[in-house]
Amino acid sequence: MAQSRPARFRTVGDGSGVDRSGTFTPEEVALALRNRGMPLEGLRYPITPAGIHYLLIHFDIPEMDAASHRLRIGGLVEREMTLTLNEIKGRPAVTMPVTMECAGNGRALMSPRPVNQPWTSDAIGTAEWTGTPLAPLLGEAGLRPETADIVFTGADRGVQNEVLHDYQRSLTPAEATRDEVILAYEMNGHPLEPQHGFPVRLIVPGWYGMTSVKWLTSIEAVDHPFDGFQQAEAYRYQADPDDPGEPVSLIRPRALMIPPGIPDFMTRTRLLEGGAVTLKGRAWAGREQVARVEVSADGGKTWSEATLEEPVGRFAWRGWSFGWNAKPGTHTLSARATSAKGEMQPDEEWNIQGVGNNACQRVEVLVE
Amino acid sequence: MAQSRPARFRTVGDGSGVDRSGTFTPEEVALALRNRGMPLEGLRYPITPAGIHYLLIHFDIPEMDAASHRLRIGGLVEREMTLTLNEIKGRPAVTMPVTMECAGNGRALMSPRPVNQPWTSDAIGTAEWTGTPLAPLLGEAGLRPETADIVFTGADRGVQNEVLHDYQRSLTPAEATRDEVILAYEMNGHPLEPQHGFPVRLIVPGWYGMTSVKWLTSIEAVDHPFDGFQQAEAYRYQADPDDPGEPVSLIRPRALMIPPGIPDFMTRTRLLEGGAVTLKGRAWAGREQVARVEVSADGGKTWSEATLEEPVGRFAWRGWSFGWNAKPGTHTLSARATSAKGEMQPDEEWNIQGVGNNACQRVEVLVE
Repeated sequence: MAQSRPARFRTVGDGSGVDRSGTFTPEEVALALRNRGMPLEGLRYPITPAGIHYLLIHFDIPEMDAASHRLRIGGLVEREMTLTLNEIKGRPAVTMPVTMECAGNGRALMSPRPVNQPWTSDAIGTAEWTGTPLAPLLGEAGLRPETADIVFTGADRGVQNEVLHDYQRSLTPAEATRDEVILAYEMNGHPLEPQHGFPVRLIVPGWYGMTSVKWLTSIEAVDHPFDGFQQAEAYRYQADPDDPGEPVSLIRPRALMIPPGIPDFMTRTRLLEGGAVTLKGRAWAGREQVARVEVSADGGKTWSEATLEEPVGRFAWRGWSFGWNAKPGTHTLSARATSAKGEMQPDEEWNIQGVGNNACQRVEVLVE
Repeated sequence: MAQSRPARFRTVGDGSGVDRSGTFTPEEVALALRNRGMPLEGLRYPITPAGIHYLLIHFDIPEMDAASHRLRIGGLVEREMTLTLNEIKGRPAVTMPVTMECAGNGRALMSPRPVNQPWTSDAIGTAEWTGTPLAPLLGEAGLRPETADIVFTGADRGVQNEVLHDYQRSLTPAEATRDEVILAYEMNGHPLEPQHGFPVRLIVPGWYGMTSVKWLTSIEAVDHPFDGFQQAEAYRYQADPDDPGEPVSLIRPRALMIPPGIPDFMTRTRLLEGGAVTLKGRAWAGREQVARVEVSADGGKTWSEATLEEPVGRFAWRGWSFGWNAKPGTHTLSARATSAKGEMQPDEEWNIQGVGNNACQRVEVLVE
């Protein structure tokens, strides 16, 4: 399906893949306007309003028709299936809050900066997804024992790094048949809007968002590890372009804070009245639970324990709060999460694709 | 209400207000991630899905409570009024498609570039707004004859250019009492999401978006032209900072095209198969009707007439289409609109605030 092409697109930046200038290219800005983050005050909502949930769309939002749409399940299966949207909606349904995060979240805060969609900290959101579990469908189709990988194809198509391809990602049979993996057709109680994968998409709780293929057209069982562009080349933790690296998979722990006070329009510096302030935010750790959130008001020198709320769901963030006595002056606030497995957010992260950067957030505030 | 403060926020760029480097500051990118554009393939929908309608939020999305929310109508009126959301919803309702556009749309395409929210061409959207007409409410309150301006205040508050203020804009009594001005509480058939002004906002069809104040808390009649920051300092057509300039008001004519073919991820260059291609898009002209749309496939040297569809509404865009015979090679496609009053889109526009830039769109395509 993938196909190489001779170089015919402009080079972005100096072509090295990273930027050391501290400024951004016009192409990065065009991507930032298309692919929007969740303004961090949106952390106040346990379920993110659909219209501010983050979006990363590699190519264009495809034009889809619900009535003629078909989802094909094929490849190494005993019984090929072709499902209409109504057939999918007629199957047993579950509704589940899921915190989703882009694997590139935090990329633009890396130094030097990998040149790609320039996320700061806001490529996140938690929605209630309604759909039908995938495992029983795969059971009915009958995966053959030689199945090594299951390939999910979306209707979005384009060129990335000179490779023309449909957007495709895969999961092993063990991952694809986990209980929480669903084919979703509703978000927050309404049919998916086009940009979120209408009419039907995959939702893989716990994994970074690239896995939850939108505009799903086919599910195919294959006898080898899938090596399409978005699986084998993109989304890898690589030290440099020659490093084969490791694939990106589960969401790493992260805590984020609602920036307190009010903003300056251009710099987003926060202006805050002194006194007792309750800092609030949310934290998540992919498939793991968040065991601890700590807050620092001195740029990470000292940390204090925040109070945790119950998680919004098994695969969704949990709220936290922390009482801070704000004294006049400038302060750098941070929060960091630690998972139940003991994995704590680092102070720094770097890799050449700019993925999985869960370094602690820093929020500058000016207290009067 | 506005209040000056000593300089205490970082300078963005070199402080001149414009950028000649061709690259963007981190602050502009942070704004682009918060304030999202409508991906231009969204032009295919006559009514924009709510979640891809453009958003410009100067400060933070405020936390609002529908039950306790009150809208006050006061100042130079015979009878002050305080309305609950249910009282507003109990009044006569209208539903109206309205094309809205940010006054800063096109700013990032200017050269040199005014440093501010860096819109390319995508700060647009058309929604169906439901609400109650404002004029009868003002009639019941009884505007006194000495009323010169009507000030609309939102719940959003912050600092811009060192001025601490609530977001406020005004309209003259003649403009505020036009039939099409409404207090809206639904968008596309659903209650407003927080980012679109929940629980109630102003909608002023035909004007650039800064006029349609979100999170509306008060409407006040005053005996002088309102001189708040967002009215008297921001949103002016100024040649330089010393030019008093003219206020920005009605939306200028614009046509936009759905970029044909498929994109390259980073550069968004379009890849297209040769042959007969139907180019499509939409055009609007604020309070005026669009009389003509022309298309150029040679970078603006020659223009041909497009076919127009009926407008989606009195204050909403109309579709257009144009048959193009795409030959192999690279091409620059453009569209331009002319209003019924004969106002045509220019090739270029510049002012120091980067407002009202309706210069023709340019779309690069690579035909194979």
